[in-house]
Amino acid sequence: MITFGVVGYGYWGPNIVRNLGQLEEAEVVAVCDKSPASRRRVQKAHPAVHVTDDSAELMSNSDIDAIAVVTPVWTHYEIAKSALQSGKHVFVEKPFTSNSAQAEELIELAASKNLKIMVDHTFLFTGAVRKIRQVLQDNTLGKLYYYDSTRVNLGLFQHDVNVIWDLAPHDLSIIDHLIAETPEAVVATGQTHLNGHEDVAFITLYFPNSVIAHINVNWLSPVKVRTTLIGGEKKMLVWNDLEADEKVKVYDKGVVQNLDPERREKMLTGYRNGDVLVPNLETTEALRLMAKEFVASIVEQRPSMTDGHAGYRIVRLLEAAQESMDDNGRLVFLNEGAIAAQVAVAMTASGD
Amino acid sequence: MITFGVVGYGYWGPNIVRNLGQLEEAEVVAVCDKSPASRRRVQKAHPAVHVTDDSAELMSNSDIDAIAVVTPVWTHYEIAKSALQSGKHVFVEKPFTSNSAQAEELIELAASKNLKIMVDHTFLFTGAVRKIRQVLQDNTLGKLYYYDSTRVNLGLFQHDVNVIWDLAPHDLSIIDHLIAETPEAVVATGQTHLNGHEDVAFITLYFPNSVIAHINVNWLSPVKVRTTLIGGEKKMLVWNDLEADEKVKVYDKGVVQNLDPERREKMLTGYRNGDVLVPNLETTEALRLMAKEFVASIVEQRPSMTDGHAGYRIVRLLEAAQESMDDNGRLVFLNEGAIAAQVAVAMTASGD
Amino acid sequence: MITFGVVGYGYWGPNIVRNLGQLEEAEVVAVCDKSPASRRRVQKAHPAVHVTDDSAELMSNSDIDAIAVVTPVWTHYEIAKSALQSGKHVFVEKPFTSNSAQAEELIELAASKNLKIMVDHTFLFTGAVRKIRQVLQDNTLGKLYYYDSTRVNLGLFQHDVNVIWDLAPHDLSIIDHLIAETPEAVVATGQTHLNGHEDVAFITLYFPNSVIAHINVNWLSPVKVRTTLIGGEKKMLVWNDLEADEKVKVYDKGVVQNLDPERREKMLTGYRNGDVLVPNLETTEALRLMAKEFVASIVEQRPSMTDGHAGYRIVRLLEAAQESMDDNGRLVFLNEGAIAAQVAVAMTASGD
Amino acid sequence: MITFGVVGYGYWGPNIVRNLGQLEEAEVVAVCDKSPASRRRVQKAHPAVHVTDDSAELMSNSDIDAIAVVTPVWTHYEIAKSALQSGKHVFVEKPFTSNSAQAEELIELAASKNLKIMVDHTFLFTGAVRKIRQVLQDNTLGKLYYYDSTRVNLGLFQHDVNVIWDLAPHDLSIIDHLIAETPEAVVATGQTHLNGHEDVAFITLYFPNSVIAHINVNWLSPVKVRTTLIGGEKKMLVWNDLEADEKVKVYDKGVVQNLDPERREKMLTGYRNGDVLVPNLETTEALRLMAKEFVASIVEQRPSMTDGHAGYRIVRLLEAAQESMDDNGRLVFLNEGAIAAQVAVAMTASGD
Repeated sequence: MITFGVVGYGYWGPNIVRNLGQLEEAEVVAVCDKSPASRRRVQKAHPAVHVTDDSAELMSNSDIDAIAVVTPVWTHYEIAKSALQSGKHVFVEKPFTSNSAQAEELIELAASKNLKIMVDHTFLFTGAVRKIRQVLQDNTLGKLYYYDSTRVNLGLFQHDVNVIWDLAPHDLSIIDHLIAETPEAVVATGQTHLNGHEDVAFITLYFPNSVIAHINVNWLSPVKVRTTLIGGEKKMLVWNDLEADEKVKVYDKGVVQNLDPERREKMLTGYRNGDVLVPNLETTEALRLMAKEFVASIVEQRPSMTDGHAGYRIVRLLEAAQESMDDNGRLVFLNEGAIAAQVAVAMTASGD
Repeated sequence: MITFGVVGYGYWGPNIVRNLGQLEEAEVVAVCDKSPASRRRVQKAHPAVHVTDDSAELMSNSDIDAIAVVTPVWTHYEIAKSALQSGKHVFVEKPFTSNSAQAEELIELAASKNLKIMVDHTFLFTGAVRKIRQVLQDNTLGKLYYYDSTRVNLGLFQHDVNVIWDLAPHDLSIIDHLIAETPEAVVATGQTHLNGHEDVAFITLYFPNSVIAHINVNWLSPVKVRTTLIGGEKKMLVWNDLEADEKVKVYDKGVVQNLDPERREKMLTGYRNGDVLVPNLETTEALRLMAKEFVASIVEQRPSMTDGHAGYRIVRLLEAAQESMDDNGRLVFLNEGAIAAQVAVAMTASGD
Repeated sequence: MITFGVVGYGYWGPNIVRNLGQLEEAEVVAVCDKSPASRRRVQKAHPAVHVTDDSAELMSNSDIDAIAVVTPVWTHYEIAKSALQSGKHVFVEKPFTSNSAQAEELIELAASKNLKIMVDHTFLFTGAVRKIRQVLQDNTLGKLYYYDSTRVNLGLFQHDVNVIWDLAPHDLSIIDHLIAETPEAVVATGQTHLNGHEDVAFITLYFPNSVIAHINVNWLSPVKVRTTLIGGEKKMLVWNDLEADEKVKVYDKGVVQNLDPERREKMLTGYRNGDVLVPNLETTEALRLMAKEFVASIVEQRPSMTDGHAGYRIVRLLEAAQESMDDNGRLVFLNEGAIAAQVAVAMTASGD
Repeated sequence: MITFGVVGYGYWGPNIVRNLGQLEEAEVVAVCDKSPASRRRVQKAHPAVHVTDDSAELMSNSDIDAIAVVTPVWTHYEIAKSALQSGKHVFVEKPFTSNSAQAEELIELAASKNLKIMVDHTFLFTGAVRKIRQVLQDNTLGKLYYYDSTRVNLGLFQHDVNVIWDLAPHDLSIIDHLIAETPEAVVATGQTHLNGHEDVAFITLYFPNSVIAHINVNWLSPVKVRTTLIGGEKKMLVWNDLEADEKVKVYDKGVVQNLDPERREKMLTGYRNGDVLVPNLETTEALRLMAKEFVASIVEQRPSMTDGHAGYRIVRLLEAAQESMDDNGRLVFLNEGAIAAQVAVAMTASGD
């Protein structure tokens, strides 16, 4: 039995508490929130759980094995660090931290104390993403051409981060999970209209082998859209997460080219149209699977599927996208082997 | 009666011939095409029209008042120039020319001979765009925030131009028509997978006053999408051109902010949800209205709504987008008065 | 404070308990269910509520003011009767009873003891139905032509009733609420494929003044559909209850006829196409509003909006539809004052 | 080469003339229409075709092999009879005739003169219906449960027939083509609101083996719907003819029942959810295939796929539906072996 203390009971906290509570292998013993109203909500829904406004109580409580950090982004680093220092495993909301240096520090700290980190990249546990991953690993699509996601809706405006840090972690973690290649560079553009943070933004990721990814995030759309197109040489895929029953469609469509080099200028391009397959998806709640994975990673003493390194990679991409957007779309490289140097150079170049 | 010679009877030519032919004030007297099969199609559909494979015949025919150029992009300049030199008005497929210098030369040539140029920006004549323009001019949306268009489908791959030059002229001409501001700079990214031209591309346009526009064009999508979101301070609009009957929707939605400066960190963001209006649209065929406009501009000796200058502005945007994409998203400025200087500065500033 | 005992904690019971429990004016003090698993679910979710497998305990408990009957249809009559006899108000799942004689008896019993009955016609409390009612009462649609509902999906097969008694109470209660006229006769057809009860059925209701209603219910549809068309002389309405945000649309569409009697055979029929309005709907949970209405009807000593008479009318329509379907679509009259006589005449007239 | 005279050049005539004209094996030599405007349209579009206002000219023209009857329903019989008497094959718009006696007479007349009849049941030649037929013949769906079609839109009101005779021939001919069983009886209901003909109607067809079909036709719907559900024991199918690309979907869904006879009252019903397949459909224009089939039936001296007998069966169903609707949903039997007797009895019974 892994015992949990949860810090933060706002919008997402209740889902975490409920899902951890439903696991046989886990138990939530304490919840901390600064807001009296939130604490009352905990007490009403979970009378047996200890409630406090002081997270230090959780850190010092030796009955607690792990801390779930479900607070605003800018607080993740301090709370997670405190938990690790107190010898507790940590589960952290996405995005992992406010910058990649913080992420690296937490990873090292956890490693030094043999503790587990898991970042809440929930989408990776949905039936849709699990099916798409299988389709890609089966090579059903053939050579990958592009990944193009639109994630727009009205709100919810965040006070501490812009639309990229709020919505794009979903897409970036999915891309990180699905695409075998490592991104080489990023270009991002966007605009601020209301509260001092960008509310409309567009990200392009360049990968090796001509793979390109694009993410469109927007807090000012009158309609909600959650649509991803994935193009491959053999087949193509559309994922509409708002469909009740037919979220993922695999299209047997493609381009057929006359490759006769002598007739290049006369090249005939044909289009292949076959059947569409709409695979049935597993419907277990993603958050439940994620909670199970975290508990299992602790019990089995292995990294979780979305461990600190996964969290770091997403923060690094967010950071690079921010850097590019701040400079109106400047190309920012992501060479993993020389991140520190690159970042230093980039920061100097952009005058930050 | 304005008499027309049409050069090019491929994919789009038949529509031009049919619509010109149906006007009371116009008559198609000759069609030129290099392909024997195309010429046979003309003869079968329009037995009374003269058919030839030599465009010079049209240029020297004094019974012809105007030439419609419905050929691949790279041929527009030569054919249009020859027509103007022969004293004929010209109607040119979009995009107007292959570069802005050609466009400027044609504009000057036409002006010097008092001839009219019209570029086929057909979408401006659709019921949808006419209604959206009215909505914007009425200030129904309030201050404009963004314009975001997705125009993707499978094919049709062009042999002489990439997906930006093929699909984005629609969006760029609509943006040019709808948005009162003049774009200041462009960032474009994209990728090439099949025939040596970019088949997936993303364009961001920066305007004054925090207006931003984005265009997603793709020849490799398994599904056809033609959706534009327009966000404003007071209302928002969605245009789905694939809807049979309800293409344009105006949403009474918005963000309401607590502007109390003392409580900035506690700022509450609210969301306003009102009715949605789906305005009825006029259904006259856009191509017919466009053909009428061209004939009227000749008869009334005035510029047409989509004259050479409109054509130039779109080519200039395409050129800048190409320049940006060639350099992986470099910011390209569009200050009309000082393009050369700006570009020089921009290149220096971005460290390329 | 009105105290409740709830009988039945299967599929729908938890929703009733939750919504009653959230009202300030109500409290659930006891829940009864025959199934040990269900009783355990109550205890886990509501530790403070008394749980029993014997409904008699609730009836004899003088601390309970009202009983909610959330059990299979065939048990409604006995449980509700027992509750009324014990001096308790009753809230009953739809359909009210298994036949109209039972409904009449319960209505009389409640009246004699000055107790309130409310039937769970939840849909009447949704934002969609409330808006549609307003649109009809405003005479926005003009003279009503027809009401046509499709309510199909896969399952849930019931063991004690067919698809008409399971799904059509929704439509019948909505029709009863929305259409000012009283239905005169019903025709129903259907077919049994699996468990001995009809799983596909179609109902036509004839009203005065040429109003006609139609209901399509089906447990064997691969897709879920919840669409209602309402046609009027001036406008028309579509209600798609599966739409997340745009459930109700009011179409300014209609038929314009040349009424010149001399030219009847040449009569020109024109079609009017105006704007579509998608009204914003209130989003308070319907079940919560319904629970409030029941409590208010008790406190204010007045009939609830969906009282026993409303329940009776729906059961009477179900009974007539069943009678018609059993006889392969025979016309069954609904003249309340003379049902027996009418049926006799009808049977003679149709030669059965 | 089969030469055609076409009678009627209104709404549908131009499509017939165009498709016959495009066949290598056929030629339209003359068109007859009473309206001067229609005749002018013929002349403009087909200068080489002889135009007349007198159908007798076509009948007596020995250069004409076959007559296409594209006129209002009430004229079909006289024109087709005249054509057959003149020794010409006939192609007749749906529905074949105004009543089944006329259809029988024409069938006999054609047989006696060794001439071919084809009725324009165009939908049978669409890619969608051809694919659905294959799916049913492959037994992909297993035992058939039901067929449920909704075909509604605003207009087009006809002056000589009601909505059943106008729209239901499509569904009835498709059902006749797809369902192996012969319908036993029909129940129809409907209502008249505007021009003296029913504009809203609902038809149920009873087949052997518990197969049931339902058709919903409506000229007063604000939205166009063309959706058919087909339920089978093994799989289910949805056909949405308004979808551009994904018209037919085959659902691997079904009901799984616990058949333990001892536990009937406890029977557990489960639901199977598998993948959905969206088969690619052939896109050849249906009217073209139909024209080819007619010409082939003449050349090969064989009955066409939609010959006079097919036309008769649809008229017989329409007649029975009308009879039922006239009597408010009375069950009308369709015993083929005793049609004459039935009709006589039925007509007496209903007082016609």
